[in-house]
Parts: sequence; structure tokens; C-alpha cells
Amino acid sequence: MALIVKKFGGSSVATPEKIMAVARRVLQEKKPDDKIVVVVSAMGDTTDDLISLAKAVTDQPVAREMDMLLATGEQVSIALLAMAFTKLGHAAVSMTGFQAGITTNEVFNKARITGIDPAKVVTELNAGKIVVIAGFQGLTKAGDITTLGRGGSDTTAVAVAAGLKADHCEIYTDVDGIYSTDPRIVPTARRMKEITHNEMLEMARLGAGVMHPRSVELGKHYGMPIHVRSTFTNESGTFIREEYTMEEKEFVIRGVTHDTNVAKIAVLGVPDRPGIAYKIFSTLADANVDVDMIVQSVRVMDKHIIDMVFTIAQGDVSQARLILEKLAEEMEFSGLLIDENVAKVSVVGAGMLGNPGIAAATFGALADAGINIAVISTSEISISCLIEEDKAKQAVNAIHARFFPA
Amino acid sequence: MALIVKKFGGSSVATPEKIMAVARRVLQEKKPDDKIVVVVSAMGDTTDDLISLAKAVTDQPVAREMDMLLATGEQVSIALLAMAFTKLGHAAVSMTGFQAGITTNEVFNKARITGIDPAKVVTELNAGKIVVIAGFQGLTKAGDITTLGRGGSDTTAVAVAAGLKADHCEIYTDVDGIYSTDPRIVPTARRMKEITHNEMLEMARLGAGVMHPRSVELGKHYGMPIHVRSTFTNESGTFIREEYTMEEKEFVIRGVTHDTNVAKIAVLGVPDRPGIAYKIFSTLADANVDVDMIVQSVRVMDKHIIDMVFTIAQGDVSQARLILEKLAEEMEFSGLLIDENVAKVSVVGAGMLGNPGIAAATFGALADAGINIAVISTSEISISCLIEEDKAKQAVNAIHARFFPA
Repeated sequence: MALIVKKFGGSSVATPEKIMAVARRVLQEKKPDDKIVVVVSAMGDTTDDLISLAKAVTDQPVAREMDMLLATGEQVSIALLAMAFTKLGHAAVSMTGFQAGITTNEVFNKARITGIDPAKVVTELNAGKIVVIAGFQGLTKAGDITTLGRGGSDTTAVAVAAGLKADHCEIYTDVDGIYSTDPRIVPTARRMKEITHNEMLEMARLGAGVMHPRSVELGKHYGMPIHVRSTFTNESGTFIREEYTMEEKEFVIRGVTHDTNVAKIAVLGVPDRPGIAYKIFSTLADANVDVDMIVQSVRVMDKHIIDMVFTIAQGDVSQARLILEKLAEEMEFSGLLIDENVAKVSVVGAGMLGNPGIAAATFGALADAGINIAVISTSEISISCLIEEDKAKQAVNAIHARFFPA
Repeated sequence: MALIVKKFGGSSVATPEKIMAVARRVLQEKKPDDKIVVVVSAMGDTTDDLISLAKAVTDQPVAREMDMLLATGEQVSIALLAMAFTKLGHAAVSMTGFQAGITTNEVFNKARITGIDPAKVVTELNAGKIVVIAGFQGLTKAGDITTLGRGGSDTTAVAVAAGLKADHCEIYTDVDGIYSTDPRIVPTARRMKEITHNEMLEMARLGAGVMHPRSVELGKHYGMPIHVRSTFTNESGTFIREEYTMEEKEFVIRGVTHDTNVAKIAVLGVPDRPGIAYKIFSTLADANVDVDMIVQSVRVMDKHIIDMVFTIAQGDVSQARLILEKLAEEMEFSGLLIDENVAKVSVVGAGMLGNPGIAAATFGALADAGINIAVISTSEISISCLIEEDKAKQAVNAIHARFFPA
């Protein structure tokens, strides 16, 4: 007997026919004693359609009412999927977020789950029913309906799995697992059988699109194995786990990622005084601008003058420009350069801790391909290089070929 | 200061533009200190669209899941209407059935309200907000979402008004009040300023279509005045109250109704034995066939033979035929006649209690028009005559002219 939470996204339940297909598939894979919870998103474009309705009423919808509106999308899917299971002869019951005992904080549109009380879910599972739960939504302690924002349904699935102490959580997607890099860019990309939560989190943070970091973080926190697999095949995909189940790891590096949603900012010729970095980065942080790779360098010719280079998301560029131009006079910059034609290429792998040659191999692969590195940053399990944007695909191929030889 | 519950149906909120119009209208009529609750149905054809979705999955949707599905319709309307109020500058908050504290029994698809806990509604009203509540839905004690079936949103409105001890409940419709008869049939029909709950209930039961008997019954039970008025004009409509506020009633008769959804059944030549009526009507009742006007007559030529005539709804005819044909042998009928070409014409008015001439005047009006009466039945506040269906409009005109002279 296994207790498994399965999550299907909006494209998997876009039509009544697809909903029937999901139900059929779940029943095919279910062993007689398995207890199954299915978490679903809203059907296809439902969420966009609801947003359009709201926009037709007001250009500034109240966040609470937007959540009231959007939460109906998943409620439609769960009802239809429960009907589909029943039609196929298996008892099933649908539950909204609040019925499944999902409590969130009060941040409408991007609420965080603060608690799970799975008592009702357990009762229905013990009664032999498949429980179908609305992803992406919860209820505040005050009784308001909330939605969880980006990555919300995956987060619901992992949280429910943790609350139920499920054996594992399955995330069904349109790809068949986690690859060593984006297979659309590198045809020889390898699908991995396993990856650790930490590595997956780092890959997601550095641009791998399959999983939202949020649900992986929750999985890591609760030690919940997450099985990422395809909606369209019955093959096993990739397990995201706390630790590898195999002693030997085939590759030290687990993945190569890239992120083109990056801008490089250079604040040039700042007279060196204590508190410069604090001033720049606290002002940006106050405006919710996330800063990534940071390099501070002292000029060789004049040791009292420094240059500061860092990266931000492209969406934050205009706001950062305003803030920095205001700071320019106070801090006596001599120049401000902003370059959006950059990309961040990263290698990720817990194995690099005991392998000092990884950084050198990465830089070597880029050098051999004739690609300049503007900025380098490292974490315990990753190395990132900022390069020119139009070299990104070439860089990913070069690095991947170095670590995953054919 | 007044506390008013206003209910708008699906056609009044069919589009974002109409939702804005409802919000504008409510704000125009609102005095600064008024506390306003708005109950809304699902937008236009939403409920039908949701039913079609379910039918695409299964031809026998589980009742519980159907309610889970249908309840989303009203949830969409309340969110959009709350946004509309906010857009127009007035604080508002939407509430689903469960958030508004509406508890129902467990009869999915046609649940009955068993309790209202308006604490949250009161809190929001006291905070100066307009509260927008989803009609047609509630929550069972076990936490399942239910819908209320036919007349559900009106019922929600009256129940919420009763729970809040509101001053009155306004039902907005596409007609501008309750008329002395159907104005499409009798152009001289008069709009009434007032009518009692009892009279309205009797009229609704006897075929007047504006209000569902269920919400009127609830209004009667709680002594809640119901103001039936037009969505399209600002004029006052008809107040349904416990008692008239004016001492003098202009007309003894309040309304003339007709109902063509009627079939006449004659069970002929039954040997008279104790328990015949019990046998026939208990067997029909067991099959949920509602029986109306009943006449039992003893034959002049043979006092041991009786004929039994009664009416049922046309939808129950085939079931009643089966049941009665089975009974025929046991009860030794000599004949069974079923006639669907009949109509019931009724006059309703609490004033007829002290006016013995009403019955005579009704029969006189029909006789003068050359219309035969097949069956007569009376209640304390109504007289009904069964006539040929194609004479129904003529009969309504003749009776109306007698009691409401031009």
C-alpha cells in the first residue's frame, strides 16, 4: 500500500476529454490498496478568462476579490474530475482548499501555506475514496479565500503530501523529467533518475523551468520525495529526494542552466568610503529589487576609487535606474552602465564540494568556445558565469559537453 | 438608517457592464447610513454552461459534485460585483454561502436552509462595507457545499434578511411588481402596492410566476417584508407583507391566476368501500405524485358506485397512468380518463373570508362567458375552477373584469 499525491496542471485538464484521460490514467496506475490524492489546477485558459472578466469591471481589482474569483477555476476542475472517477466506477470526492484544511497567511494573490489539517482528507481516503483537491488556494484564519500565486498548485501538492506523510508526491508535466540541461538547446541532454532537493532548488533558482523553487523548497523542508514525470507516458521520470539512493553518482555535475532574464549594472568610479555597498544595496532592497551576482573591484591606478558590478532581473531595470540616478550625486559616481544583453550560465551539483576542478573545467569550456566571462559567482553547489546573451546557447552546449561527454 | 437586502438575478448580472449597472444603481439609492447586503445569482447562462461541462464528463453527475461545480457560478458574480462597488468608490466585500454563515441540510441540488449565522456579515456591515453574498448556496454541517435548487437565490435573500432582522428584502426582477393577473393576458391588470404573504403564497401556488413559493413562505415565517420591483426602473413595486398597512383594501380579490400545467384524472365506477380514497392517493403519494383538486361523487343511479376526479401536474401523467392501471384490477374500476386539455383558473384574496358573494361572482363570470366548470376547489383565501385549456385566457379576462372593473 502506498499513499501518493498526484498533481496535474491546467493543460492536463483543459477539456472534459482530458479530464477523463487523467482519471483513466490514475486508475490504471493505482494498485488496489493505494490511497490516492489528486491535486488539480484550473482547466486550460480558465484563469486567464477570469482575469479578463475582472479587467472588464475594473483595471485595479481588489486583491481579496481577485482571489475569490480565481479560486472558482480549480473548484470547477475538482468537481469534474471527481465526476470522472465516479463515472469510471471509483468513488471520489472533491475538496476545495478550505475543505482540505489548507490554511494560508493573509497575503492575497500570493499567499503562503501556514498549516494543513488533513483530517477530512484522511477520513475520505480511509473510506476508500480518491480525494481530489483544488490546487493554488487556501483559507485564512479569518475565513477569507486566498490563492497562492506562481507555482501554487505544485506547492499545494507537496504541502498536502507532507501533511499526509505521503510516500511521495508526483508532479505531472509536459516533459518527462528533469534533464541535465534544457533539451531544446542541447539535444544530448540527459534525463536524470534522481536529483537532490538542494540541487533542484539551485537549478530552479538559476533558470531551470520545470519546477518552481517554492514547491521544491517545501519538499526539502519536509523531506518529501517529488517525482517529476510526463502526463503523456507511463515511464518513470525524475525523483527529487533528500539524498541519492545510489551510493555512486554517475556525474559530479547534475545540471547546466541558463537565465537570460538578467541585466548587468555597473556603478563606476565610486570614491571608496565605508558603507558604500550597504547604501547601494539597502536602497535597492527597500524597493524590492533583488540583487544577484555582486563584484566590487578596486581600480589598479587609483586605490581610492572602486567599481561595483551586479545583476538584477530585467523587469527591475527601470526602477533600479531611477534609484541609482538619484544616488549618483550623493555618492559621487562617475558613471552608470546598464546592459540587458547578458545571460547567466550556471553549473549545479552537490558533488562539486569535493571536486576542486569543477570551476576550472567550467571556465575552460567557455574559454575554448571563445566566450568571455564578465562576472563569476559561486555557491556551495553552483558556479555561475555572466556572459553575452547571444552566446548563451553556445555556452550551455560547451559546458554540458565538458561534464556530460557523449 | 435602514438595513436592506437586495437580490439581483442572473440576467441582471449577465455581463461586466450589467454588473457595473447594478453597482451604480445600488449606490444611487443608498442613503449614507443605510446598511446594504446584495445577494446575486450566477451571470446569465453560467449555470447552463457548467451543466453542459458536467454532461460532457458524465450523463449521471454525482449530486454532491454537481453542487461543487454549480456553486462557482455565484462565486464569480460576487467577486465581480464587489470589485464594481470598489471601483465606484464604495468599500465592499464578497462572501460565499459558507462565509455568510448559511447552513443547509444534506439534500444536494435542492438543499434547504437550516440556519443562518450572520456574525461575519454584521461585522462587515458595521465596518461600513456593502456585503455581496452568493445566492443559491450553503454549507452542510459536515462542510459540504450545497445548492438550493429552484428559487434558491430569492430564498437566500429572504433568509439572510431574516437572519439580519433587515427592514425589508428587495427582489429585483424583469417585471415591476405583482399584478392582479398576468398583464400579458389581461392588459388592464393592476399593479398592487401591497399583498400579504398568504395571498402571494396562494397566488404563486396557483400559477403566478413572479415569485417562487419557497421564498414567500420563508418571508411569511419570519414576517419579512419583500419588495418585488424592477431592475430597470427606480419606481416602487409591490410589497409582500404580513398585513396590509392601509386599513381599507381597495379590492376584496387580490389576484386572478391560471395554470395550464394541469391534467384531470377521472377514476370511474369504483365500487364504494371504505379506504378507496386512501388507497388511490397514498399509492400516488408514495410515488411522489402531487394531487390537487379532488372531487368524489356518488352516482345518482347506483349509490354503491362512485367516481373520483382529481388533478395532477402534466409531468406526472405517465407515472400516474402506470400506477392507476395497476390499481384498476384490485379496485375494480370501470374506467380511467386522463385529460391534459384543462386549465385551473383561480381567484385569490384574504378578503373573501368575510365576503360570501365571491364564489358566486366567480362562477357567474365564467357562466356569462359560456365556460363550463369541471371541478371546483376552495381554500380559505382562494377559489379554483378547472376548465377547458383553450378557454383559460378568456376565463382569466372574464373573472378579472368582474373583480377589477375598469
